[in-house]
Amino acid sequence: MNVSHASVHPVEDPPAAATEVENPPRVRMDDMEGMPGTLLGLALRFFQFLFAAAALCVMASTSDFPSVTAFCYLVAATGLQSLWSLALAMVDVYAIMVKRSLQNRRLVSLFAIGDGVTSTLTFAAACASAGITVLIDNDLNSCAQNHCVQFETSTALAFISWFAALPSFLFNFWSLASR
Amino acid sequence: MNVSHASVHPVEDPPAAATEVENPPRVRMDDMEGMPGTLLGLALRFFQFLFAAAALCVMASTSDFPSVTAFCYLVAATGLQSLWSLALAMVDVYAIMVKRSLQNRRLVSLFAIGDGVTSTLTFAAACASAGITVLIDNDLNSCAQNHCVQFETSTALAFISWFAALPSFLFNFWSLASR
Repeated sequence: MNVSHASVHPVEDPPAAATEVENPPRVRMDDMEGMPGTLLGLALRFFQFLFAAAALCVMASTSDFPSVTAFCYLVAATGLQSLWSLALAMVDVYAIMVKRSLQNRRLVSLFAIGDGVTSTLTFAAACASAGITVLIDNDLNSCAQNHCVQFETSTALAFISWFAALPSFLFNFWSLASR
Repeated sequence: MNVSHASVHPVEDPPAAATEVENPPRVRMDDMEGMPGTLLGLALRFFQFLFAAAALCVMASTSDFPSVTAFCYLVAATGLQSLWSLALAMVDVYAIMVKRSLQNRRLVSLFAIGDGVTSTLTFAAACASAGITVLIDNDLNSCAQNHCVQFETSTALAFISWFAALPSFLFNFWSLASR
């Protein structure tokens, strides 16, 4: 009789419940709404573009904005933000229409870095403009000689655009880390 | 003769090289320097505290900072940043001395949120102060009546403190996502 010599060690099956409790199923980001190529992701891009473009137009409509460096920077940063969001909105529309996933590592890294840079620049511009708007409005009380309403409106719109851009960055960064 | 009826399907072993290429080993953040409870993490906390405290002292040394809202905000934000970084530096020292890991989910979430909030507030304050400093210095050329050097130094120190706080946030956030 030919008996196999492989020594068999009884391996205990780890109790399923225990392992499940210790390692709760990780939330894989690519299944979640808000990621590139999803409707929520597209909605975020739309709002980013809308508010950034509005902030740019309101600030550019004031005749004296070029005399303040921070306001020129706001126009530049919101211009960059609207171009970036518009481009990515088009990518999202394309991905949704052809049902193509945008979840490969290189693309997600590009999105995360792009979102990180543009949202930081927009936030910085909004904060600098807010500092000056409060200085003119509150500290110096010289709204009579300045376009305070436009400055405040444009600054607020830039903050809202940043507020819509932040989730895109966090979603992409989380997706990158959880691959 | 008792023959087992379990039907055996020949399962092909996936070629090791192929699987390795598709899923490159994920970088588990808790093994990396820079995380809480590591020397690099402690060094980051030290620089955050040092530059935030320095920015606070330089701005507070100017007699007229209370007349500008943004500068008051800079003093408050850098005060919060230095307290937060000092507290976490102590936690790091304790963890290193007793060789205790700080990698449980709740702690890392707390660190990530705390770092995110304090570094964003510090960055916002630095940008607002930068906007006003450039306005006074460059746009209005009125450094003769103002403490331009202190304003510029304090703003620069606040930016450096933010620059040291950003990696802490990104490390913790990445660690949270890759659990």
